[in-house]
Amino acid sequence: MDKNKSVLRRIIDRTRPGEDIGLDHGSQQGRQRTINADGSYNMERITGRLLGNIYLYHWLITTSWTKYWLSIVSFYLVDNIVFGFLYYYMGAENFNGVLGSSEIDKFFSCFFFSCQTFTTVGYGSIAPITKSASVVAALEAFLGLMMFAVATGSLYGRFSKPISRIKYSGNIIIAPFKEGSAMQFMVANELNSTLMEMEARVNISWSETDANGKSTRKFQQVKLEIDKIAMFPTSWIVNHPIDEESVLYGKSLQEIKEMETEVFVLLKGFDDVFSQTIYSRQSYTTEQFVWGVKFLRPFHVNQAGRLIMDITKVGQFEPAAS
Amino acid sequence: MDKNKSVLRRIIDRTRPGEDIGLDHGSQQGRQRTINADGSYNMERITGRLLGNIYLYHWLITTSWTKYWLSIVSFYLVDNIVFGFLYYYMGAENFNGVLGSSEIDKFFSCFFFSCQTFTTVGYGSIAPITKSASVVAALEAFLGLMMFAVATGSLYGRFSKPISRIKYSGNIIIAPFKEGSAMQFMVANELNSTLMEMEARVNISWSETDANGKSTRKFQQVKLEIDKIAMFPTSWIVNHPIDEESVLYGKSLQEIKEMETEVFVLLKGFDDVFSQTIYSRQSYTTEQFVWGVKFLRPFHVNQAGRLIMDITKVGQFEPAAS
Amino acid sequence: MDKNKSVLRRIIDRTRPGEDIGLDHGSQQGRQRTINADGSYNMERITGRLLGNIYLYHWLITTSWTKYWLSIVSFYLVDNIVFGFLYYYMGAENFNGVLGSSEIDKFFSCFFFSCQTFTTVGYGSIAPITKSASVVAALEAFLGLMMFAVATGSLYGRFSKPISRIKYSGNIIIAPFKEGSAMQFMVANELNSTLMEMEARVNISWSETDANGKSTRKFQQVKLEIDKIAMFPTSWIVNHPIDEESVLYGKSLQEIKEMETEVFVLLKGFDDVFSQTIYSRQSYTTEQFVWGVKFLRPFHVNQAGRLIMDITKVGQFEPAAS
Amino acid sequence: MDKNKSVLRRIIDRTRPGEDIGLDHGSQQGRQRTINADGSYNMERITGRLLGNIYLYHWLITTSWTKYWLSIVSFYLVDNIVFGFLYYYMGAENFNGVLGSSEIDKFFSCFFFSCQTFTTVGYGSIAPITKSASVVAALEAFLGLMMFAVATGSLYGRFSKPISRIKYSGNIIIAPFKEGSAMQFMVANELNSTLMEMEARVNISWSETDANGKSTRKFQQVKLEIDKIAMFPTSWIVNHPIDEESVLYGKSLQEIKEMETEVFVLLKGFDDVFSQTIYSRQSYTTEQFVWGVKFLRPFHVNQAGRLIMDITKVGQFEPAAS
Repeated sequence: MDKNKSVLRRIIDRTRPGEDIGLDHGSQQGRQRTINADGSYNMERITGRLLGNIYLYHWLITTSWTKYWLSIVSFYLVDNIVFGFLYYYMGAENFNGVLGSSEIDKFFSCFFFSCQTFTTVGYGSIAPITKSASVVAALEAFLGLMMFAVATGSLYGRFSKPISRIKYSGNIIIAPFKEGSAMQFMVANELNSTLMEMEARVNISWSETDANGKSTRKFQQVKLEIDKIAMFPTSWIVNHPIDEESVLYGKSLQEIKEMETEVFVLLKGFDDVFSQTIYSRQSYTTEQFVWGVKFLRPFHVNQAGRLIMDITKVGQFEPAAS
Repeated sequence: MDKNKSVLRRIIDRTRPGEDIGLDHGSQQGRQRTINADGSYNMERITGRLLGNIYLYHWLITTSWTKYWLSIVSFYLVDNIVFGFLYYYMGAENFNGVLGSSEIDKFFSCFFFSCQTFTTVGYGSIAPITKSASVVAALEAFLGLMMFAVATGSLYGRFSKPISRIKYSGNIIIAPFKEGSAMQFMVANELNSTLMEMEARVNISWSETDANGKSTRKFQQVKLEIDKIAMFPTSWIVNHPIDEESVLYGKSLQEIKEMETEVFVLLKGFDDVFSQTIYSRQSYTTEQFVWGVKFLRPFHVNQAGRLIMDITKVGQFEPAAS
Repeated sequence: MDKNKSVLRRIIDRTRPGEDIGLDHGSQQGRQRTINADGSYNMERITGRLLGNIYLYHWLITTSWTKYWLSIVSFYLVDNIVFGFLYYYMGAENFNGVLGSSEIDKFFSCFFFSCQTFTTVGYGSIAPITKSASVVAALEAFLGLMMFAVATGSLYGRFSKPISRIKYSGNIIIAPFKEGSAMQFMVANELNSTLMEMEARVNISWSETDANGKSTRKFQQVKLEIDKIAMFPTSWIVNHPIDEESVLYGKSLQEIKEMETEVFVLLKGFDDVFSQTIYSRQSYTTEQFVWGVKFLRPFHVNQAGRLIMDITKVGQFEPAAS
Repeated sequence: MDKNKSVLRRIIDRTRPGEDIGLDHGSQQGRQRTINADGSYNMERITGRLLGNIYLYHWLITTSWTKYWLSIVSFYLVDNIVFGFLYYYMGAENFNGVLGSSEIDKFFSCFFFSCQTFTTVGYGSIAPITKSASVVAALEAFLGLMMFAVATGSLYGRFSKPISRIKYSGNIIIAPFKEGSAMQFMVANELNSTLMEMEARVNISWSETDANGKSTRKFQQVKLEIDKIAMFPTSWIVNHPIDEESVLYGKSLQEIKEMETEVFVLLKGFDDVFSQTIYSRQSYTTEQFVWGVKFLRPFHVNQAGRLIMDITKVGQFEPAAS
């Protein structure tokens, strides 16, 4: 029979391969959170190369709007200054149209001619009349089309980047559940988009001190009552029943705090508007644990029989009867 | 042996994790349908924030065509009014070209110059001749390229958004099946696109009244005879054999109605044209249940040996022999 | 023990849900192939609606290049004829620039002005000088940008549509395999793209005649020795060992032909260039069956130790030793 | 009991279908590596067709930047030469604006007019004044918009192509693990992007010589301690415990070298910036094997409690204590 069970054990292992949260043991010795409020990892990367971990497209898509516009406008300016100087260097006799009397006026005329060429506006009030000026202008118009493709593409890429705005309950609660208790948090979709096939994965990390006083960081992916839902119109209480296999089993709130417990959440779903899979991450630290309460329902049916979901109520709780 | 079976039980649970339709128990107390005819959720969302659940890209992609064009044209108008006033405020002496004799004509000239710059048409019949006018025009041409990227991108996004046009049978039927009976509905692809790897997931929701007269809403994902098909050229009868595990087991049509049963369908497949996964949702209420019939085949082979699929026949049924 | 096995049976059933090729039984009574050479389904669809199964984006992406260019050029022409007439109707006095002496010349000038506006070229040799002409031109430039977004987007959509060019062996062979035999076909990637995580799914369909002489069409998804490969640099012999569970077990070539056997293949993989999943379909009929041969290897290592894959040799076979 | 185990065996086989690395046995007889340093396959493809394995979009996306720009600029030049000759052939009388006195000057004027039309700059200093010239210019502006859609689309496609920059340890090590030993390599994400749901698949290929001295190439997908991690902020030591099922079991480093062992790695994950799945490939040859060491941790927590990941330390190792 033992043999049979070990075969079964292997089936289990193969069916659901072990998963690790991707933090090597030991990387959690610090006091800072592992995941920031915006879902990014709270860490620095040294690559030993200048700009080693910067990839231009990544940067254009993920940087702040201020930095994005500054960089795009700078590029526009620099291009026009360079081509403006080129036209100015060639001389006014290469262009028809008013080019100004002073040298500075002539340069500005060239600069504005460059702008009109780079954007392909081409009023024609200034226009190249010699071969050399025409060649440079033909090149700039070509470059303008190609470069604006990157600028407008990245703008639209930022604009249309699949986002999720999942509202997480501010607290993680320990609520009565069946004969024992369960760890729960609540999530809801803030957007009017339709999320489908939501999956939740929850990992707990904690510190353990061995006989020699050396502290190491441990990880466990915890079992959820339900880890996948087909549709996600309202809210979802993600529920981890604390059974004997759970690291939280038999622990008091005090012990959980001493273990420097951190709960990592990864949500995944399909967004109907973007036609893409979106992800959402969150971590909870022990200050956010509340004991012996249960979540209030954040939705109700109004008099017209219509379902009303109140996002502001997500995470509200009341004392559990026990 | 018990131990062995419980291990097995856990394998099952791990292999097919429980799935919930994402409606917390209790959200179904109202009388309205949960899923609208167009597949959207029939509900409202309160976020406590102005425009809290509006995300611009989402809105541009999913709003009606009327609202979409109104908003894009408005943006075009507003931009040109703003820049038109700017040019008008600078004064006619900054531009060559006819600018009109009256003030209103001058403004309109400036407005049209703005249009010609914003769209990068740039006829040149009106053109900036001073530095200040040139700077503003250079800025507007740049903005025009960037903003039209959002406008044209969202237009193409709407245009190319993966859609599915799955035809559902108007009724759900209870047909004789093997020794018992089965709940069935029929689906077919209305488009000439090629759908592959179709998956169906069917949930039933019903009301249960406990001893205290308190009604709660229950959910069950039901077992299907076949829940995945590799190719989907014709029609597919999704078939739920009503065995002892089914909530419908042994129930009469009257009982099913009293339970306020609702059937939720989620279909998923890969569309060859979009190269993307598409989803389709549908719900059936008890008025759509028909007892003791079976579906007619909606396709036939014509004299040339060619398969003819008649979408208009999807959902037609005849009395079942037994 | 029986009970244990039935639980196990259910694990199996749940782990690998039954799959059907999506052709309802009976749809195969005709003589024509089910899948065309280009991978599309060989069938017609009746929708009972005018243009019921046409979806504009689908059409623009999948129609022939001839029809595509004809429709795009037509749209360009029609737009310019409409706007050209509008400008012509307004009268020559609304524009500066040469507008011709005859009426037909005037119309053509208006038509070309429309072209210059719609494409945002805007030479300015013809330009609107009145408010009414300017309004229409501003509208046309706006429309031009929006409409060309659909035209250029669909052109790029066609151009960048993920394709697969999988070379299939011209024949399906029955080769000796271990103690018995196996049904095999060979596939290779014609493109230099990198395909990964290839999966194959093979269904066999055949006719069965019951005691009453009524013929029905049956389906079976057959077991493959290997149904998924991590990388796909050279060729892959997809191998179905004919064991007792296979419908081909113990059948002669004559019997297979009488059963009107058809083999359906669905391949799926991830293309590194497109960063997308691609699919490929193929069907084999009984004329393509060859008995008692084995495939030749279509690759070799040259003197420099470099692997040479010869696509032209895919599907070549030699008599099997036994 | 045997029967029970064989049923179980089949469950296992069905749950995790056999996977092959996609190199047919025998394709590894050469001495060259199978996977190049850049992750591409080290091989040639013969298709028997001119340009048979070239697909234009593939080529534009994957060719070098030099070849890409050469081909785009060439296309721009060729188009303008062709249209320039067309305008020149029509004659100077079809255009207003300075067209030069010599024939060569006239051609260049036409060429530059073509550039101004193709890019839709349209200064208007040269403009068509006859019907025939206007028709050709209207066509060229239309073509320009369509063709630049392909040029700018492919530029943005190259620019935004999902990439991964996974840092692999330079060596594969055999480290002590539990009672035995394990084969390990280390990976880390060089970019600041967020990778999630990383999966690793490792195959070993080796040569085996049979009694007749004929050498054949064998493959095995090896078992990993953990083959999937939910998040990937720091580094990941992919760990293959060498148990009895492993081909490396009981082998010395000398034997591993004589077997011409090659280790193939396929990594897969979801990139948050691209919202897409990315893949990374690597192969290790026997020169990269190191025995009896263990990897150093490439990250530490600084005084501010912040996690510092040092990419330059990925792959550093120290002698294993035992």
